[in-house]
Amino acid sequence: MYEIKPIGIIHSPYYSIEDMPIQPKGASEVEGYVIVDGKYIDGLQDIEGFSHIYLLYSFHEATRTELIITPFLDKQTRGVFATRSPLRPNHIGISIVKLKKVEGNKIFVEDIDILDGTPLLDIKPYIEKFDAVKESASGWLQASDKEISKKRSDNRFG
Amino acid sequence: MYEIKPIGIIHSPYYSIEDMPIQPKGASEVEGYVIVDGKYIDGLQDIEGFSHIYLLYSFHEATRTELIITPFLDKQTRGVFATRSPLRPNHIGISIVKLKKVEGNKIFVEDIDILDGTPLLDIKPYIEKFDAVKESASGWLQASDKEISKKRSDNRFG
Repeated sequence: MYEIKPIGIIHSPYYSIEDMPIQPKGASEVEGYVIVDGKYIDGLQDIEGFSHIYLLYSFHEATRTELIITPFLDKQTRGVFATRSPLRPNHIGISIVKLKKVEGNKIFVEDIDILDGTPLLDIKPYIEKFDAVKESASGWLQASDKEISKKRSDNRFG
Repeated sequence: MYEIKPIGIIHSPYYSIEDMPIQPKGASEVEGYVIVDGKYIDGLQDIEGFSHIYLLYSFHEATRTELIITPFLDKQTRGVFATRSPLRPNHIGISIVKLKKVEGNKIFVEDIDILDGTPLLDIKPYIEKFDAVKESASGWLQASDKEISKKRSDNRFG
């Protein structure tokens, strides 16, 4: 067992799980901000040069683990590790968001798909050389962009 | 504080931090495998359809936090959140690897940059619609691909 601690709080226009987009591409241009605890402010040096960052956070409203789930984008059940469902053994989420600007310990971001008040666990730079995948296959997930953009989460993960 | 638990172990040809590539692009075609604890095997259903997966893991050899560090690819100090250094407040790492095949609770992967014996925390599918970033800027990190491929980590993060 490891202990992890919140290092800040993520703020967004999403105050309930029911109203959330399920991933950033459904959250296009949605603005939010991250407040990093003051004691970690030195760690934010140089981050403003990156256009995108990963936010790691706690799915703090996920109260259980389910190994087989029905994803929002599907009607069939799937293994939880083949989905982004919060109901995983370790309730850790990751999202890539656009970094707009940094003011002290406040980071303004865009394309956010995270619930307001979510505990922040880590920030990592998105580095094209390391992170860009040129060709990929997305398995069962064949929903159209349009469908994803429109789809909102419901309360099945409460 | 949250508790997180290993859900498996990552195996690679890297037995010491000194010999590791610093990111997957420096680990091209390097093969490894992940053993997921048997009790989570149902969660692996459907994962084989994805060409790439995120591995989340514990930087279990990182023993301290430093907010200002000198990255492997630079000579200047940088804020830890603008780097992929293990010395972050929560010692969680993420890597994108190629998924080759799944046999029971064993996942064969490629392009791995992770130390042998690393505790696995989560597996998430790489989903192009959600994760692909079309244009990005990588701040201070302007090292060439060649330089990254050649560069190996040293023991400064022990």
